[in-house]
Amino acid sequence: MAVYTHVEPDDLAALVSRYDIGTVVSCKGIAEGVENSNFLLETTGGRFILTLYEKRVSEGDLPFFVDLLDHLARADCPVPAMIRDRSGIAIQQVSGRAACVIQFLPGISLTHPTPEQCEAAGSALGRMHRALEGYADARENSMGHRHWRGIAEAAGDLDRVLPGLQRLVDDELAWLDARWPVGLPAHVIHADLFPDNVLMLGNRVTGLIDFYFAASDFRAYDLVITHASWVFSADGQHCDPARAQALMRGYASEIALSEAEIAALPLLARGASLRFLLTRAHDWIHTPADALVTRKDPSPFLARLRRYSADDAANLFAIA
Amino acid sequence: MAVYTHVEPDDLAALVSRYDIGTVVSCKGIAEGVENSNFLLETTGGRFILTLYEKRVSEGDLPFFVDLLDHLARADCPVPAMIRDRSGIAIQQVSGRAACVIQFLPGISLTHPTPEQCEAAGSALGRMHRALEGYADARENSMGHRHWRGIAEAAGDLDRVLPGLQRLVDDELAWLDARWPVGLPAHVIHADLFPDNVLMLGNRVTGLIDFYFAASDFRAYDLVITHASWVFSADGQHCDPARAQALMRGYASEIALSEAEIAALPLLARGASLRFLLTRAHDWIHTPADALVTRKDPSPFLARLRRYSADDAANLFAIA
Repeated sequence: MAVYTHVEPDDLAALVSRYDIGTVVSCKGIAEGVENSNFLLETTGGRFILTLYEKRVSEGDLPFFVDLLDHLARADCPVPAMIRDRSGIAIQQVSGRAACVIQFLPGISLTHPTPEQCEAAGSALGRMHRALEGYADARENSMGHRHWRGIAEAAGDLDRVLPGLQRLVDDELAWLDARWPVGLPAHVIHADLFPDNVLMLGNRVTGLIDFYFAASDFRAYDLVITHASWVFSADGQHCDPARAQALMRGYASEIALSEAEIAALPLLARGASLRFLLTRAHDWIHTPADALVTRKDPSPFLARLRRYSADDAANLFAIA
Repeated sequence: MAVYTHVEPDDLAALVSRYDIGTVVSCKGIAEGVENSNFLLETTGGRFILTLYEKRVSEGDLPFFVDLLDHLARADCPVPAMIRDRSGIAIQQVSGRAACVIQFLPGISLTHPTPEQCEAAGSALGRMHRALEGYADARENSMGHRHWRGIAEAAGDLDRVLPGLQRLVDDELAWLDARWPVGLPAHVIHADLFPDNVLMLGNRVTGLIDFYFAASDFRAYDLVITHASWVFSADGQHCDPARAQALMRGYASEIALSEAEIAALPLLARGASLRFLLTRAHDWIHTPADALVTRKDPSPFLARLRRYSADDAANLFAIA
């Protein structure tokens, strides 16, 4: 959520001159994105996002993202296409970083979505999944089920976050390993469709953004990530039935989940909660307490994990 | 240089509805400004900067800044006017902060200005000074000469920054106190016209921004702040004669300095160097080394102080 790399005005002008987008009018670093440097670039030809990729996004993965966004844009999903220069090149080099000029989309991210907005998000997720059903490309989900044990080990002693957490995580990993499903419908998914990665105007989804966690996994796993991030109170203690039902209704308007998928939702949601609990715990342990970056509190995802583990958890995914 | 305060979409919509600027299209936090929260706000009526004032800018000072920018805008200086709502109010409340909707200006900030660009900056500074000659309002310069001893004391032991710095600063303060001029032309000045506070397109100045240090002081002191920040190498070791002459030439095209002002320039420039040396040293001492904010290195302003103290320093202000 910060600008890390400076772009010299001359380098910017040289970059923009490769494209058919006019000349630079303004360029301001914006506080957005997953650890990349992002700029709102205005030219005489329009507005764009300029992204410089920092260490978290591997340059080798960029062609995957370019193709994915191309595919989704062609399927009329509201995603920001990566603009190609006059030679057809989307991935450039600026200030020693890989960089892309990306379509600007209107809309703002919500912090307190209404049921209507949850329904729109669910529907947009479903439409995206329909567009991805036949998509042939694949990418290992480095944040997926098979990697959670490694993430937990890299985090270190989880009891430093919360006494008793290490044992709880070990038990949960064993429980999920014994039951993790196979054979559910899978393709490339967004894998991080939190409200801050959805742009909206009123009740309309105008943008699905930040695909840098996109990877191959169960589509129902994408749904429960969206569920976990859209329909709970900020502390993770309360699931709002109206928002949950609206999200599921929106998704169901596009995708008919199989019996096996529906049965797996609570278990997948426990897994999604564990995934964000683990990555936040890792960052919590490895970010100095006095560093002026936001350390995201892991405990709201522990609360979700508990809620999804309850006997009646299937009800959280009911459609009214 | 960061976004500190979050704005809820509903609060943003309510704010924008007070103005004749249409409805919200997009709002992105930008990494710009002196410790305020800044957003690039797009509405159906245009683009604006939304600023929420954090602790460094006192809410009581805001009417001063509103009037100052109004005055300069009326005098055709390229400054961002603070927009008034339908009731004529410029200073609003958002997310518990004082906030203003500010005109968006095109242009980007330079890091390596050319002599032509330095001349344009000098000329823009001179035009602004002409517009401020008759301006009646005043504001104590809390970063001005009378306050440097207090800033030095608040910083603590300056030898923690650089061995020997405490003694050097004490001597410099005594030297400047004995010689600081009186009676030079004074009015409200910008007092922080570094390159990052000037927007340019090519060789044209399109914006003078970030007036939150503006206060009453010698106009020649404003000129030497601009000199110190525009015509030196980044480490402060080298003054580029071509850029220095161009800056002075640009300023002279608008303002004829008096003999007394010209004679005072090296001394005022020593003072300006000390001012930025002291505030950076203060931040250096009081910012944790592992905090992920940029601590600006004080030593480039020590290098400038030394350069401005040399016997031939008057030459640095010569107009070819």
